[in-house]
Amino acid sequence: MRLEQTAALAQASDTKVLLYVLDGLGGLPREPGGPTELEAASTPNLDELALAGTCGLHHPVAAGVTPGSGPGHLALFGFDPLTYEAGRGVLEALGIEFPLEPGDIAVRANFCTLDADGNIADRRAGRIPTEEAAPLAEMLDEIWIEGASCFVRHIKEHRFVLVLRPEAASGAAVDDTDPGRTGEPPLRPWPRDEDSEPTAWLLDTWLEQVRDRLSGEARANMALLRGVSSRPRWPSFEDAFGMRAAAAAAYPMYRGAATLLGMDAAIVEDGAAPLVPAYRDRFDAYDFFFLHFKSPDKAGEDGDFDRKVAAIEEADAIVPELLEIGPDVVVVTGDHATPSTLESHSWHPVPFLIHGGAAQGDPATSFGEGACLQGAHGIIRGCDVMRLATARAGRLAKFGA
Amino acid sequence: MRLEQTAALAQASDTKVLLYVLDGLGGLPREPGGPTELEAASTPNLDELALAGTCGLHHPVAAGVTPGSGPGHLALFGFDPLTYEAGRGVLEALGIEFPLEPGDIAVRANFCTLDADGNIADRRAGRIPTEEAAPLAEMLDEIWIEGASCFVRHIKEHRFVLVLRPEAASGAAVDDTDPGRTGEPPLRPWPRDEDSEPTAWLLDTWLEQVRDRLSGEARANMALLRGVSSRPRWPSFEDAFGMRAAAAAAYPMYRGAATLLGMDAAIVEDGAAPLVPAYRDRFDAYDFFFLHFKSPDKAGEDGDFDRKVAAIEEADAIVPELLEIGPDVVVVTGDHATPSTLESHSWHPVPFLIHGGAAQGDPATSFGEGACLQGAHGIIRGCDVMRLATARAGRLAKFGA
Repeated sequence: MRLEQTAALAQASDTKVLLYVLDGLGGLPREPGGPTELEAASTPNLDELALAGTCGLHHPVAAGVTPGSGPGHLALFGFDPLTYEAGRGVLEALGIEFPLEPGDIAVRANFCTLDADGNIADRRAGRIPTEEAAPLAEMLDEIWIEGASCFVRHIKEHRFVLVLRPEAASGAAVDDTDPGRTGEPPLRPWPRDEDSEPTAWLLDTWLEQVRDRLSGEARANMALLRGVSSRPRWPSFEDAFGMRAAAAAAYPMYRGAATLLGMDAAIVEDGAAPLVPAYRDRFDAYDFFFLHFKSPDKAGEDGDFDRKVAAIEEADAIVPELLEIGPDVVVVTGDHATPSTLESHSWHPVPFLIHGGAAQGDPATSFGEGACLQGAHGIIRGCDVMRLATARAGRLAKFGA
Repeated sequence: MRLEQTAALAQASDTKVLLYVLDGLGGLPREPGGPTELEAASTPNLDELALAGTCGLHHPVAAGVTPGSGPGHLALFGFDPLTYEAGRGVLEALGIEFPLEPGDIAVRANFCTLDADGNIADRRAGRIPTEEAAPLAEMLDEIWIEGASCFVRHIKEHRFVLVLRPEAASGAAVDDTDPGRTGEPPLRPWPRDEDSEPTAWLLDTWLEQVRDRLSGEARANMALLRGVSSRPRWPSFEDAFGMRAAAAAAYPMYRGAATLLGMDAAIVEDGAAPLVPAYRDRFDAYDFFFLHFKSPDKAGEDGDFDRKVAAIEEADAIVPELLEIGPDVVVVTGDHATPSTLESHSWHPVPFLIHGGAAQGDPATSFGEGACLQGAHGIIRGCDVMRLATARAGRLAKFGA
């Protein structure tokens, strides 16, 4: 179902929907036949929601596809990540919460090393440490070119983001300058369409100045550009689902994904407990609230099964307080699986529960991978979960007569 | 899978397929943990079909979407309602079984009240009663304009249908004249493309005459138009599935949906029993038969759990007689859920069973929401059910070499 078709059904209501995301929730058993992290965790409150509500599993992107954090969250917001694909530069800028404006061009960039002939000797400038790279990025932030404001923000080691704010609208269809191998000079930023010619010219001009300013450096004496992209012109979450939307997250990437869809995003301290007052204080002003809890993903990435179990139990503990605030419909799920046995995101389907509204019968009596497989929703796509939650909140009109 | 892709696989056979639709079949428990209407009903015959056949649940439109009757039936006929979206005017005309011809333009219309300044005082003319509105509609049916035949058919209270039959082909991309609020004059019917300019002009001319003829009325002194649409140029059911198709239904809406796809639709008396002779008498002449039974939906809409149970039992009682007539494959399902607890259509997935042909093993031993969730088909889209039935009837060739 296309988002415009859903948007056409959105109807007003005074119901409130809460999306509580436990990042990297999905997991795998530590040993064959054993429980997953979620199944091993003691989650009496989530189990109660699962018992009273309905359960299922979702593929954030598609079966077999390991989601990045951006696509995983877009899916949970009801935006099919196979249709709504943000450029890499934009995702990188969102990840450091750069306040992108419409028309901005964002680019993933990194320092590289050129040899005396101008060929690339190291595509990552020997992965120079952050303390060395950060001042260089600050220096590049001072570059001034005609026709655009330029912003450089260091990320980590050799990586940084370049944002161009052109004075006149210009396209983002510009090729990478990183040829992907050493022994060759960097490529020119080549426009793929007429609209993007000004952008290519601006990037070329900017790169000339980079070359001048970095010429004295031993390792980081040039920059390579990839993923030139512009902030997409998508419908907002409110356009799509008719709900005024807000978010609370400790990490910029998730606030960035939320603001990309026009949500009002608040900064909170890390952990589950700070999400409660953030939700309570702003409950009245919004119809939809997205709460992001990072810890399960971090523990999974670190390969720490027990710490991921503890993080899920931390998430469970605040559920009664969240319910007390008064949401009509609650969705609890993850943006992807991060099994601690894999120490990374994975393609496995992610458990979800929907509590509130007119729920059908559901055999799932606890919240876990195995129970959710028996759930009323079966295995669906991540972007369908929000539509189900919206329906449960009485916010979707009938399709056709 | 696109309909043309299915159509390309249709192969001849002498098998017969029966689609038996229990309108609004899907339901919800009256109390948590209790049975749904279908589960509470005693349905020995349907249970036997479920035991010997295969079961599943379907979303007529998409997860979370509450289907109207038109889209719900299109889905069961194998036409994806997200692709095959009939205009509101056409659905309204089908609902009263107006014999739409190709090229006809159908419009939802209603009487409204204009104040002395020509602004809308009441968008529904105070919901004037049918006995007052019907003669006015008859008067409007007499309007004659140059370039098109015009037909007005009263529906109920302030609502009626206008059908234009233009002498020369003309588009239906014309805006509503209902501004959606009072205190403003009606809008002009505005064409959204060049093809639709003649239609807009015809509607404008027609509206002028309406204003003249209704000028003496206190309440219904003007008409508002919405959902201008033309009978879609879709493949017929026979084009898509290679089966000569007929229908029997007591209510015009369902005969209308069937005839939209070229089915030969017979009028029957209300109730389950009259479907048996209607099927028997025409069994030989058709490959596919659609039988429509309205009562479960009506009981659900009325919030009467027990009457819906009784209606489902009435539907069950004729199953042996239907089987005796000799269909090779039988599908039993609903076009949407109408839980009596909600007193309306709902988005909940609808149980279905397929009996006959080469069936895989299936744990479902009775016909009900809970059993179907365990069924061999899982939860699928409504438009996929007909393809499964066609395959079971040996009427779909191999895809690719």
